[in-house]
Amino acid sequence: MTAIDPLMNVRVVLCETAHPGNIGAAARALKTMGLARLVLVAPRRFPDPQADWLAVDAVDVLREARICGTLEEALEGSVFTVACSARVREIATPMVPAREAAARVVRVAATQEAALVFGNEAYGLSGDQVDKCQLLATIPANPRYSSLNVAAAVQVLAYELRVAAHGEDARREPAQPLASFEELELFYEHLERTLLDTGFLNPGYNKKLMPRLRRLFGRSQLEKEEISILRGMLKTLVHPKKRDP
Amino acid sequence: MTAIDPLMNVRVVLCETAHPGNIGAAARALKTMGLARLVLVAPRRFPDPQADWLAVDAVDVLREARICGTLEEALEGSVFTVACSARVREIATPMVPAREAAARVVRVAATQEAALVFGNEAYGLSGDQVDKCQLLATIPANPRYSSLNVAAAVQVLAYELRVAAHGEDARREPAQPLASFEELELFYEHLERTLLDTGFLNPGYNKKLMPRLRRLFGRSQLEKEEISILRGMLKTLVHPKKRDP
Repeated sequence: MTAIDPLMNVRVVLCETAHPGNIGAAARALKTMGLARLVLVAPRRFPDPQADWLAVDAVDVLREARICGTLEEALEGSVFTVACSARVREIATPMVPAREAAARVVRVAATQEAALVFGNEAYGLSGDQVDKCQLLATIPANPRYSSLNVAAAVQVLAYELRVAAHGEDARREPAQPLASFEELELFYEHLERTLLDTGFLNPGYNKKLMPRLRRLFGRSQLEKEEISILRGMLKTLVHPKKRDP
Repeated sequence: MTAIDPLMNVRVVLCETAHPGNIGAAARALKTMGLARLVLVAPRRFPDPQADWLAVDAVDVLREARICGTLEEALEGSVFTVACSARVREIATPMVPAREAAARVVRVAATQEAALVFGNEAYGLSGDQVDKCQLLATIPANPRYSSLNVAAAVQVLAYELRVAAHGEDARREPAQPLASFEELELFYEHLERTLLDTGFLNPGYNKKLMPRLRRLFGRSQLEKEEISILRGMLKTLVHPKKRDP
């Protein structure tokens, strides 16, 4: 791979985190989404066994985390900085939903450094901290209770960054070969004939049944192999195989 | 509001959760996204102070959680059941990314009962458990480390459900009135004239400067009020107000 993964150009900055467990959980959230660069501004307790415990297999992200005294230091070199906050306040910083913010971060991060900034568990980001950022990302939330845990907020933003950078199709099931038009028509003929032969349908039968069955099987987008199974079943139901004694 | 919120028709089922903290964090994740119905299948420890602590202000979701002995019991009455798992396995259940799964759940939940099922922290969902579901949702993840914490996975799916049910624009900034074409043109005239008057530009000046400045201000989609600020600034920079002695 010659192109740089844009997620490698994104640093995630946690400001004044109080609980080391949240730092560990955030590290795990980042690594599961393919991010790796954690920056901690004045964490209350770090390193800490609680952080390691919640990072599980993302302890490497903790080990390589950069610790800074101030947000300014944490943002050095970043050309696009996004604050993440649930609170709506009277601020000048433009505000967009998380998905759009992620798309904009990834566009910049294709070639340049970007940063996402999260606040303290109890008081979030200060107005001064938000003013240092060019954009404010908000996660759509329950208006009556919009307070996500900080690591949960990191997880949502990191997820949106991953989808923006790499799409979401990676984990889709491998496509199975679908049945062709002719195979489907042969199956429906076989089905109708069998239903007539066995007396489930009378020759002058309700004309609505076959369309209903077509609708049912149509919805499930039958695969080639499934047609074989269904036709085998039809045959064997009508002419049961002899059981071994 | 007469229509039922589709999120009220969605239950979230956690199977054999080992750590009560994860149950509490999942309850908080649900409530922040406007979901409320938690079902616990054979939790190892529940209720538990650790669950309450991590639920923060979502303790009501814990109090109203239903506890079941089996997954079958938990799914009674659900007409559309989606398993959430990071693992790709040889299974018959169709697999789609979280976003598509959420859209399908919300479509059903507009009128009928749906369920999302999550597995144990260490071993996930068993093949038998996944077989009870009609769809498998996977969260796009780092192929080298795809193991999200269970409450983090609940957060991502709940977020996608919220966006599918209620959109993501709620937290967008209130639109400010933008400057009209005429206002912009008057500003650019004012700017150019001032740059000529002050000698920053010579009469036979570089023709590329004004287009560059238009590009700069064009990108920022100037608001009416900002035009006033900018023109006020231009005026005062050239003719400074007298300071009070």
